[in-house]
Amino acid sequence: MSKELKYAVFGSGSWATAIVKMLCENKQEIGWYMRSVYTKEHLLKEQHNPTYLSSVEFHLEQLKLSNDINEMVAYADVLIFVIPSAFIADELKKLHLELTNKIVVSAVKGIIPETGLLLGEHFHKNYNVPFENIGVIAGPCHAEEVALERLSYLTISCADAEKAQSIAEALSSDYIKTKTSDDVIGTEYAVMLKNVYAVAAGIAHGLGYGDNFQSVLMSNAIREMKRFIKKMHKMKRNINNSAYLGDLLVTGYSVFSRNRMFGNMIGKGYTVKSAQMEMNMVAEGYYATKSAYLLNEKNKKKTRLPIINAVHAVLYEGKDAKKVFKKLTDKLD
Amino acid sequence: MSKELKYAVFGSGSWATAIVKMLCENKQEIGWYMRSVYTKEHLLKEQHNPTYLSSVEFHLEQLKLSNDINEMVAYADVLIFVIPSAFIADELKKLHLELTNKIVVSAVKGIIPETGLLLGEHFHKNYNVPFENIGVIAGPCHAEEVALERLSYLTISCADAEKAQSIAEALSSDYIKTKTSDDVIGTEYAVMLKNVYAVAAGIAHGLGYGDNFQSVLMSNAIREMKRFIKKMHKMKRNINNSAYLGDLLVTGYSVFSRNRMFGNMIGKGYTVKSAQMEMNMVAEGYYATKSAYLLNEKNKKKTRLPIINAVHAVLYEGKDAKKVFKKLTDKLD
Repeated sequence: MSKELKYAVFGSGSWATAIVKMLCENKQEIGWYMRSVYTKEHLLKEQHNPTYLSSVEFHLEQLKLSNDINEMVAYADVLIFVIPSAFIADELKKLHLELTNKIVVSAVKGIIPETGLLLGEHFHKNYNVPFENIGVIAGPCHAEEVALERLSYLTISCADAEKAQSIAEALSSDYIKTKTSDDVIGTEYAVMLKNVYAVAAGIAHGLGYGDNFQSVLMSNAIREMKRFIKKMHKMKRNINNSAYLGDLLVTGYSVFSRNRMFGNMIGKGYTVKSAQMEMNMVAEGYYATKSAYLLNEKNKKKTRLPIINAVHAVLYEGKDAKKVFKKLTDKLD
Repeated sequence: MSKELKYAVFGSGSWATAIVKMLCENKQEIGWYMRSVYTKEHLLKEQHNPTYLSSVEFHLEQLKLSNDINEMVAYADVLIFVIPSAFIADELKKLHLELTNKIVVSAVKGIIPETGLLLGEHFHKNYNVPFENIGVIAGPCHAEEVALERLSYLTISCADAEKAQSIAEALSSDYIKTKTSDDVIGTEYAVMLKNVYAVAAGIAHGLGYGDNFQSVLMSNAIREMKRFIKKMHKMKRNINNSAYLGDLLVTGYSVFSRNRMFGNMIGKGYTVKSAQMEMNMVAEGYYATKSAYLLNEKNKKKTRLPIINAVHAVLYEGKDAKKVFKKLTDKLD
């Protein structure tokens, strides 16, 4: 099956660029949609993305570049979305093609803020994509290490095992090992939640907590993540698999994580607004915090989520980070 | 109960020094045994340990220092051993007092190499200490952060809940939070195994593997640790609690961990001997690797331990680290 399927990647950030690179190891041609005309022109002229992972050289004969989302959707069978969750609903407004026969894969690290839906749910609800055609790519994987061809592991989730396998094969190479899973919803929530915990790790660091506390925070975070996901989607899963715990660790321990950096600034006393302005970007964990909090509020019987609640109090309720985290330390063990 | 019990710490390394500091927050007097006459004299003159955590100032009126292990055992009710596992059997040869009425607590991060026994088992078997009088102190806790009074969490395990609570209270303070557990054997194995995984993390780093792989390694390590401990001592435990996962993370992610540093040198091509000479010390993980490997070999039905086996192959079977870890990457997921 995999041989004939055409792949397209939507987005031009570092993770999108890394995924295009992985696919280039296996596929003769990859569709690549990006909004920016400048990025496309630069790629055509210089064979690399001007802004992200610019050390990665592409062979132009392998790339089908386009600034037209409809053209790209028409071209491909497998659509991999790697657009920040805050922009994706807007981006999709340009789309006027049917998606019912497409395989839609989320490599978005978050939830759609306007609707509180996971990307898979969004495509299912609003574009009638059947659930067995929805996939998720989960790490642990920094795009920067893909650029360096350092060994990384991905988990590809899809309810249809054959499709999961096919996507996994398209991404595998000397430096990318893949496994498949049928926990689409669980891995998508895990990808989203890890960013909240990375913000928490950043806040703690900014407040002066050390490595001892960080390890307690991560140990509590994986237990909290397990409770959250179990409540949302009950099925058998080992939360210590790479797609859940591994992904949490690579983000929570990375000093380069934007979410951790954002949290760090908050911990050091920046306001949310000034931290966002300073970083000139939006950390996914900012939206994920609100979504995770609201999803839990909707439950009749709420799950105990001390870390998510603490981050929410700091980011959305104007509470003092120092006081909130002091209280949080009593709830962890 | 706790008020009347007298505590003594045996050992003068950084972790021993940190534990004495914790106890000093609560107790009027702490016994402190150390082999080195020089260290004792220096403490008496300068109020700090000359070699480890020397920023920590002690009040001499709180310390009962001694170079005589029998004098110290006679003095105390609770004996906390913090001597490297490689030296403890020799050190105990000097002892000629009964221990049957003592509470013996292990803060040793390893296994006794001569016998392959955990410290608790060693005291039970060779000194008739009843199991309900044996305790374990587990982290996650870098001694260096205790010196800085950064918030840290400890788990105190003892089959006798009241004794666990009493020891926990003696160690608790503004910057030390404690919890208790009845999983004495499990936490002691966890403390030992984390050092093997820290060596593995170091080897991987030395070989050039990056953060993506490190997170996969840690995610596999906690699953391997769960299998190992379950086989050795079946009881209900949550392996993601701080005493297991937290302690693994604080060691595995620390660039200051001696075990990780040792592994890193091996990964970079040092021989075991030259790495040990260069570091001028012995990493606990070196002995723990052999013990863990042999314990598993003794089982009729062996547990799958790809990481421990890989580290054993590199440290004890003269295998090439690069090749061994290349094979290991295929066994992880």
